[in-house]
Amino acid sequence: MANGGTKTAWKVPEPTLRRLPWYLAFVKLLKQKGESFVSSTQIAKEINVDSSQVAKDLSFVAIAGKTRVGYEIDTLIRVLECFLGFTASHKAFLFGVGSLGAALLHDSGLNQYGLEIMAGFDVRDELDGKTINGIPVFHMRNFPEKQQELGATIGIITVPVEKAQEVTDEIIAGGIKALWNFTPFRIRVPEHVVVQNTSMYAHLAVMFNRLNSIQTTEK
Amino acid sequence: MANGGTKTAWKVPEPTLRRLPWYLAFVKLLKQKGESFVSSTQIAKEINVDSSQVAKDLSFVAIAGKTRVGYEIDTLIRVLECFLGFTASHKAFLFGVGSLGAALLHDSGLNQYGLEIMAGFDVRDELDGKTINGIPVFHMRNFPEKQQELGATIGIITVPVEKAQEVTDEIIAGGIKALWNFTPFRIRVPEHVVVQNTSMYAHLAVMFNRLNSIQTTEK
Repeated sequence: MANGGTKTAWKVPEPTLRRLPWYLAFVKLLKQKGESFVSSTQIAKEINVDSSQVAKDLSFVAIAGKTRVGYEIDTLIRVLECFLGFTASHKAFLFGVGSLGAALLHDSGLNQYGLEIMAGFDVRDELDGKTINGIPVFHMRNFPEKQQELGATIGIITVPVEKAQEVTDEIIAGGIKALWNFTPFRIRVPEHVVVQNTSMYAHLAVMFNRLNSIQTTEK
Repeated sequence: MANGGTKTAWKVPEPTLRRLPWYLAFVKLLKQKGESFVSSTQIAKEINVDSSQVAKDLSFVAIAGKTRVGYEIDTLIRVLECFLGFTASHKAFLFGVGSLGAALLHDSGLNQYGLEIMAGFDVRDELDGKTINGIPVFHMRNFPEKQQELGATIGIITVPVEKAQEVTDEIIAGGIKALWNFTPFRIRVPEHVVVQNTSMYAHLAVMFNRLNSIQTTEK
């Protein structure tokens, strides 16, 4: 899942960044239950991670636990949400309003995590001017103009696999700084561009394979 | 992303299973371009993986490359699709028809990869009897009856985080064998149950953090 092309030495390791949202979800649950403090041991036990790992992960967030009582839950939630970027608004464009692309436009939940999808783009003329879940869809030829106007930093790639690299090159040239790639294609990007791959099909493949192994064993 | 609770020794390593769909996507592209053969070196170069790793990954699929010409593309596609379970039909139920759940019901693309979502379930009465993208939605109380009738093996979890464990327990008791968890909660399952976590928010967190680091450096 790492961006193979990037050699930048990031301050916070990717595994830490991937674990922090788990901690956040758990601590929010504790708050709902009326708790005020949480220890790294408690988090560790729930998330199934070593408690020294939890303390190390949280040290990146610049929050200190108190001896015996642990972390104050309200502060921890506020600091984690801010650190993870969920409280800021990040402008995004979505490229490829097919089945998955349209589905993501329908998911208003992403907005609550700081991702503001401002427009969708597609090469099909019949989609130009449509609106999905309140989000306008434009023809791909309007991207440079809309980018000038709205200044998105994130591009969500949901185009067909054979167009993935072409669209990637085009939108990076247009000023997109980070790509969320949902295609099963390994896109290539210049060193300063951020890539996250969410390969739903890879997850399906793992699930199907494990399921088959279990069913074969049971027979 | 691994299922921490499972101690089963799987035949095919998870990293291999996650790479194979990348190979498949690339090889399908080559076919579109009219190619007939592909070497592991070619795949390796494109995907940015060591070529001995590609050969090792493909050895699990039980396909042999020929000296000099490599793998026959038609055969490789057919064998990979079958091995990954994309050509079979896997019956699934989706739990939690909120924003993300409804979005996934809209994504007909999953069907092409062998995931047949037969019904959605939700606790809200007003959704009972609705249809999204041709898929019926029922009240959660109808799950046991529908499970008896349709026999789903996969459960897609898109409920609110505080309900994730409760729903997990309920549907495993009802006979669901594999869970595709989209919530940011680490669900606990018995050893024989398969879990794949697709944490969209974790990917967002990594992307936002990298983006901030870059923008800070540029200033």
